[in-house]
Amino acid sequence: MATKLPKESLTIMNELVLPNDTNTLNNLMGGRLLHWMDIAAAISAQKHCNRIVVTASVDNVSFKHSIKLGDVVTIEAKVTRAFHTSVEVRLDVWAQNIPSGTLVKSNEAYYTFVALDKEGNKVEVPELIPETTDETELYNGALRRRQLRLILGGKMKADEATELKALFFGEAK
Amino acid sequence: MATKLPKESLTIMNELVLPNDTNTLNNLMGGRLLHWMDIAAAISAQKHCNRIVVTASVDNVSFKHSIKLGDVVTIEAKVTRAFHTSVEVRLDVWAQNIPSGTLVKSNEAYYTFVALDKEGNKVEVPELIPETTDETELYNGALRRRQLRLILGGKMKADEATELKALFFGEAK
Amino acid sequence: MATKLPKESLTIMNELVLPNDTNTLNNLMGGRLLHWMDIAAAISAQKHCNRIVVTASVDNVSFKHSIKLGDVVTIEAKVTRAFHTSVEVRLDVWAQNIPSGTLVKSNEAYYTFVALDKEGNKVEVPELIPETTDETELYNGALRRRQLRLILGGKMKADEATELKALFFGEAK
Amino acid sequence: MATKLPKESLTIMNELVLPNDTNTLNNLMGGRLLHWMDIAAAISAQKHCNRIVVTASVDNVSFKHSIKLGDVVTIEAKVTRAFHTSVEVRLDVWAQNIPSGTLVKSNEAYYTFVALDKEGNKVEVPELIPETTDETELYNGALRRRQLRLILGGKMKADEATELKALFFGEAK
Amino acid sequence: MATKLPKESLTIMNELVLPNDTNTLNNLMGGRLLHWMDIAAAISAQKHCNRIVVTASVDNVSFKHSIKLGDVVTIEAKVTRAFHTSVEVRLDVWAQNIPSGTLVKSNEAYYTFVALDKEGNKVEVPELIPETTDETELYNGALRRRQLRLILGGKMKADEATELKALFFGEAK
Amino acid sequence: MATKLPKESLTIMNELVLPNDTNTLNNLMGGRLLHWMDIAAAISAQKHCNRIVVTASVDNVSFKHSIKLGDVVTIEAKVTRAFHTSVEVRLDVWAQNIPSGTLVKSNEAYYTFVALDKEGNKVEVPELIPETTDETELYNGALRRRQLRLILGGKMKADEATELKALFFGEAK
Repeated sequence: MATKLPKESLTIMNELVLPNDTNTLNNLMGGRLLHWMDIAAAISAQKHCNRIVVTASVDNVSFKHSIKLGDVVTIEAKVTRAFHTSVEVRLDVWAQNIPSGTLVKSNEAYYTFVALDKEGNKVEVPELIPETTDETELYNGALRRRQLRLILGGKMKADEATELKALFFGEAK
Repeated sequence: MATKLPKESLTIMNELVLPNDTNTLNNLMGGRLLHWMDIAAAISAQKHCNRIVVTASVDNVSFKHSIKLGDVVTIEAKVTRAFHTSVEVRLDVWAQNIPSGTLVKSNEAYYTFVALDKEGNKVEVPELIPETTDETELYNGALRRRQLRLILGGKMKADEATELKALFFGEAK
Repeated sequence: MATKLPKESLTIMNELVLPNDTNTLNNLMGGRLLHWMDIAAAISAQKHCNRIVVTASVDNVSFKHSIKLGDVVTIEAKVTRAFHTSVEVRLDVWAQNIPSGTLVKSNEAYYTFVALDKEGNKVEVPELIPETTDETELYNGALRRRQLRLILGGKMKADEATELKALFFGEAK
Repeated sequence: MATKLPKESLTIMNELVLPNDTNTLNNLMGGRLLHWMDIAAAISAQKHCNRIVVTASVDNVSFKHSIKLGDVVTIEAKVTRAFHTSVEVRLDVWAQNIPSGTLVKSNEAYYTFVALDKEGNKVEVPELIPETTDETELYNGALRRRQLRLILGGKMKADEATELKALFFGEAK
Repeated sequence: MATKLPKESLTIMNELVLPNDTNTLNNLMGGRLLHWMDIAAAISAQKHCNRIVVTASVDNVSFKHSIKLGDVVTIEAKVTRAFHTSVEVRLDVWAQNIPSGTLVKSNEAYYTFVALDKEGNKVEVPELIPETTDETELYNGALRRRQLRLILGGKMKADEATELKALFFGEAK
Repeated sequence: MATKLPKESLTIMNELVLPNDTNTLNNLMGGRLLHWMDIAAAISAQKHCNRIVVTASVDNVSFKHSIKLGDVVTIEAKVTRAFHTSVEVRLDVWAQNIPSGTLVKSNEAYYTFVALDKEGNKVEVPELIPETTDETELYNGALRRRQLRLILGGKMKADEATELKALFFGEAK
């Protein structure tokens, strides 16, 4: 099975914030943004796997800035690492109000997807080979984030999470 | 400022999975579910705060079971703890295919919301007093989940997260 | 065929009134509410019948209070009586503006549904046994409402509607 | 205040049944049709009143035929009678599957609307003068249907509903 | 194969401009209108062909007047000419603000559709016989518009477009 | 007023074809695509003008390939030329079915937009300076396309369209 590069899964999505996407303060609702991010990430995961994919998890996402009606939301998604039958996708989200010239980094997030064949069975995915320094850092961090997911999902004991321990207690561990 | 009980914010939502909510395998898309969960949680947070609320974060959510076209998704949301100007909401999600009699627990999740006045400024929210054993456990855990959010958001150093360390690595640490 | 209790079909739905649900006065449009009520009632009917169901009729619904953008609409649906291959569902609808603390009873309505198998043929449904006084009253009234539907649908002559006459014009008739 | 003719409010709407409008049997959901009918009727009521209008009630609607994915739904709406600040609108609904050449009359219904000024206060509407025999019959029947609505809404005693009594007990009354 | 008259494909659609159809100036977005026009034109083409149809092209459309939130958009569609396996549909679009009594002609446009059988193969369509002077003019102009489409699509050389030359250089050519 | 480069308005949009976007053959409907293209083009025009923009026209668009449910549609939009208060945007559209590895160029199109201030008055826009050979060719062609729009909109006589004549019939004309 051939390997793939991060840039092969790069996916850019632009969405315009319409009235139904907003609350009574005219702010984009968080759930609507999570929905757009899921679609952008799924397209990215599809590009890496060349398979139907289904969302397996979304990591902690925090919403720091309000995004307003009429703003343009730009989502960039790229696969950071492939595991046996799944991939992790990194998302960067920006919001701009073009007429007034503002642009803010809105969110960073990680979604994971499982690859399926047409009957819905899990299938192996190509390995990812990072190219740049940033991609390598994301590739390495993916293991740590995976351990956190497994602990939070009750599928791994904290003691076994060696990568994660390093995050909490530094290199002495 | 009056205190509130968890049951005062209990919110139940039922949604029918329609074609546009599904992917090409006729499975509910993860992002669509996150969107519904955000609305249910926001209503619950509103009930506690009696304020306009905006999503501040969503914790790690994992999707273990596929939910199919025509299934009924039931979401229960309840506030677990109030902080100064924000609340944590716990969500339990079930999916049932009523004609075939199946019912599965689909997800558990935590969303947080910030309370705002009409001008969009943060405002203080009522304290939450847990009643039952389950509610007390969720109330206590809220502190730990908050530390994890702060670390993941780069707002707290891992060393300071004493609650979280205890969770992951036991009291010996 | 087993019997069922009204509480087994209880279905609660909460919806947030979004911009696209409203007219130029920022009021929820009646048709949008009828749509939500249909989905809530269909889920309730499904729970009683454990079958695919299709809407057979909606009784007179009146809209007394305007519901505003940002309000939370709560719909409670419960089966009142089962006929041979159909059920009547009672709906109670409330609208609340949570930040300002208002709560009004918005509507009461009855929808009926026919149960179908996968080929679309009508199938028998379980009998409903009312438990409480309220449920018994709704159970008894269902016959009267059914006669009115049959007359309005041109399927029964007014003279034969003995139940209905009693309702409108007293026992002297 | 000028009078108006029924034909001045004639409104025709055609809608294509798309996947999201259907249930798992690929049939148009009743609530979706009620929503379309509400919009068609509201446009018709607006044409008569030249005012913003809000739905006041929908009379009993029965769904006799299933309408399928891909069918074209044609809705004709026309005002039948004006009361002081409200109008009754009659709707006729057909469904056709054009490629297979089928056409069925699907529904007949009555919606009522109240006319409002920009501040949301009720305002007087023009009188309607029926022209044809059909229009005159609908005009006369409107009084009977109004009495039924008032009784069902608890705003009129059955004894006072002289028009309605005639429906149930014939000319002897 | 039977012939058809233009009036047999006449299709009228009325749509209410809702918040999600508008931009931040509360104007109907052009793309939303193009979407509605496509559906109206497809229904009209279906009526002529009694077949599934797919959009083949849309000619130049210009948007001269802004259409506002709450306006009623009326679209009239009618087939102008049938070619071997396709038809041209003419659309006339009006926008009215009924409460304020304004009515403007908003757009004129031409869409073309190809007729398909259930397997997706092109099939022959009935010939169209124009009846009125207007219909005959539209019928004749259809040839010219078709040549322009073919040139713009790179499928015809300008020298062969005899009909179109007449448009540019008058009868002297 | 500063000038701008074409690359400053480059906008990429990716959309997943969902059930409601398709007809009964599971093909993306043309009108839905025109809607997405309008949003992508409007974002691109906004980026050039730093203003609210409204659609002024769409040129002839032809649909050569069917796009299927589950396909990913990629739209690239870039301003080709600025006129006094308006811009022309070029769109390139591709459709890919990622699991099966197909990728087709689906459409090329031109939309024009007018720039407005907050009161809805037309405002001057920055000049566009093409950089590459392709951009220069698109810049030059924009004049020709503009003449065609003016003729088709009845605002220019064919005799005055010198640029267009040259395109269609060579310099000898």
